[in-house]
Amino acid sequence: MRATVMYGAGDVRVENVPDARVIEPTDALVTVTRACICGSDLWPYKAMEQSEKGKVMGHEAIGVVESVGADVRNLKRGDLVVMPFAFSDGTCDFCHEGLQTSCVHGGFFGNEEIAGAQAEAVRVPLADGTLYVLPVGRDDALTASLLTLSDVMGTGHHAAVAAKVGPGKTVAVVGDGAVGLCGVIAAKRLGAEQIIILGRHPDRVARAKDFGATDVVGERGDEGIERVRELTNGIGVHSVLECVGTEQAMLTAAQIARPGGAVGRVGVPHYEAIPAAGPAFYNNVTVSGGPAPVRAYIEELLPDVLEGRIEPGRVFDRVTNLDGVPDGYRAMNEREALKVMVRP
Amino acid sequence: MRATVMYGAGDVRVENVPDARVIEPTDALVTVTRACICGSDLWPYKAMEQSEKGKVMGHEAIGVVESVGADVRNLKRGDLVVMPFAFSDGTCDFCHEGLQTSCVHGGFFGNEEIAGAQAEAVRVPLADGTLYVLPVGRDDALTASLLTLSDVMGTGHHAAVAAKVGPGKTVAVVGDGAVGLCGVIAAKRLGAEQIIILGRHPDRVARAKDFGATDVVGERGDEGIERVRELTNGIGVHSVLECVGTEQAMLTAAQIARPGGAVGRVGVPHYEAIPAAGPAFYNNVTVSGGPAPVRAYIEELLPDVLEGRIEPGRVFDRVTNLDGVPDGYRAMNEREALKVMVRP
Repeated sequence: MRATVMYGAGDVRVENVPDARVIEPTDALVTVTRACICGSDLWPYKAMEQSEKGKVMGHEAIGVVESVGADVRNLKRGDLVVMPFAFSDGTCDFCHEGLQTSCVHGGFFGNEEIAGAQAEAVRVPLADGTLYVLPVGRDDALTASLLTLSDVMGTGHHAAVAAKVGPGKTVAVVGDGAVGLCGVIAAKRLGAEQIIILGRHPDRVARAKDFGATDVVGERGDEGIERVRELTNGIGVHSVLECVGTEQAMLTAAQIARPGGAVGRVGVPHYEAIPAAGPAFYNNVTVSGGPAPVRAYIEELLPDVLEGRIEPGRVFDRVTNLDGVPDGYRAMNEREALKVMVRP
Repeated sequence: MRATVMYGAGDVRVENVPDARVIEPTDALVTVTRACICGSDLWPYKAMEQSEKGKVMGHEAIGVVESVGADVRNLKRGDLVVMPFAFSDGTCDFCHEGLQTSCVHGGFFGNEEIAGAQAEAVRVPLADGTLYVLPVGRDDALTASLLTLSDVMGTGHHAAVAAKVGPGKTVAVVGDGAVGLCGVIAAKRLGAEQIIILGRHPDRVARAKDFGATDVVGERGDEGIERVRELTNGIGVHSVLECVGTEQAMLTAAQIARPGGAVGRVGVPHYEAIPAAGPAFYNNVTVSGGPAPVRAYIEELLPDVLEGRIEPGRVFDRVTNLDGVPDGYRAMNEREALKVMVRP
C-alpha cells in the first residue's frame, strides 16, 4: 500500500510499504478515507534526525473497518470510525477515568513502532477501546468536522477543560493554529464571555473571530502580556489555553492568567521546565493539561458536530491526495496552509 | 515596645522599637498574645542581605484588639483574634472569591513595609477584612491549634485542596516541616485513604503517623520516587502536597503524581521554573497552589479545631518568650525544633 514516510527533517516521501494488516487479535484494519497533517507533525519535520527506516506518519483519521481480529467485539467490517491519535484498551483504570492517553496498554500512532494514518490503511491496536463508530454515512458533508474529533477539536476542548473555562469566564488562547482555533470553539461552547486570541496571521485571526473570539492580540512577549491586561481591567484572564508548546508561549500564558486562574497546556512542550514558577505561585495560577483524551470527548462533542452547532472542520483550508502530502508538510511549515486534509 | 528585628542572614535581634499604633482609619492595634516562627522565616534567616533598617519579623499571631481606627466596624477592644499571614480588605473580587492572598489592597506581614507579629503588638491594616474574631476565651487550651489557623494549618489545607485531595485518594506529602504535618492532617480530614510522608526526621515522621500518615519514605531523589511508586502499584499518587519549596522537592513532587494527578505546592518556590515540564505534561499532571488564603479557610477549619477533631497545635515543640526568639530561629534552622511558639 502507499503511505507517507518521514526519514528526517524536511524529508517526507510517499512510498509503497508492506500492507497494513491485523496482527494481534485485538487489532482492526482500517481503510483510511480521510487523514490529515497535524501541527505536531511539524516538530519532527523541523528536527527529526535522519533515519534509515523512517516512520509512517499520521495520527488522525476517519476510515472504514476492513477486518478485525478474533477478539474484537464491538466493530464489524464496514463500520465508519474515528481513530483518536492515541490507542487505548478502554478497560484500565485510566480509561475508566477518561484519561485514555495514559492507558496502561495504550500508545500513539505515527512513530517507529506503530505506523500512522497518512496512508491507504492503518492497523489499529486495541480496536474495541480505540475506535468510535460514527452514526453517519461515508460521504457525509460533516466529514471534515468529524475528522477533527480524532485530535484538534478534542485537544482544543481539553485545553479549555484544563483551563477551567466555564460560563462567564474570560479566556485567552495562545496560538492561532488549528488547535488554537478549536480552543476558541471550545471556549465559546463552554460559555466563555470574552475570548482573546493571541495570533498575528490575518486569515487565522479572522477565522478565530468567526468561531467566537472577541479580541485579537497580535503583539508578543511583554507587549502581548500588557495588551491582554489592558483588555481585562489590568488583571488577566481566568483561563489560558496554551496551544503552541514553546517556552515563550508558556511564559506568556503563565503571566496573562489572573490570580486564581488556570493555564491548560496542550502544545507539545519544547521546554524542560515551566517558566514563571514564581509569578504563577504568587498568583495561585494552576498549570494543567497534556495529551488530550480525545476518545473520552467524542461522546460529548459529537452531537454538537452532527447538529452543526460547532464547525471545527473549517480549520482545514487545503485538501490533497497522498501524492500531495509532502507539499502539504511544506505548506503548513511555512504557514501557507493552516491544516491539510488528506484523501488517500 | 519590644520586637524581633532581622538585619540579615543569621542576625536576629530583640529590640525596643517605636510602639505599634493605629495609623490608617481601617487599622487595628493588636496586642500579641501568641506568635510563632515560620519555616518561611528561615529563608531570609539563611540568605537575607544585611540591612541597616532591618525588618520586624512574624506573620502568624493570636492577639487581643487594643484599639481600632475610625472606619473599623466589626472589631472592638478586647476581641480575641487570629491574624492571617496576609492582610486583605474583604471586599474586592479576589476576597469574594476566597483568594484573599491576591486582595487588590492587601499585602503581607513581616517585611520592610509592614511590621510583623514577633513583637508585643502589631498594627493590622484593613482590620475588618483581615482579622477573625475567635469565639473562645483568652487562655483556652486550644490556643496552639487556633494559632496554626494564621498560617500552617490553612497552608497545609490549601496544599491539599490544590492537590485535589478527596475521599479514597492516595496522597504524598513532600516535607516533614510544620506545613507538611498540617498537610497530613488536612489530607486525612478530607478523606484520603493512603498518606505517604516523605521525610527522614524521626520525631517529625512519628508525629506525621500520629496525624494519619500511613507510609513513610525516607529516601530522596530517584530512590524516593521509586519507593512511592512501589507503595502505589507502580503508578504514583493522586495528590502530592509540595511543602518545601526547593527545586528538588518540586522535581520529586511532579514525578510521584500518577497520570491525571495533581501537585499542590505551598512551599515558597526557590526555583525559577517548574521542573519536569515534559513528564508532567505527558501524564496530564496539574500543578497548582500558592500563598494560602488562610482567611478563607478559618471558617471551615475552626469547628474541627474547637471540637478537637484536628490538633494542628501539636506541631509546636517549643515555647519561648521574646528573648528566646533568636535562639528559636537557630533551633528551627538546625532542625532541632520543629516549630517555635512565642509568648511575647
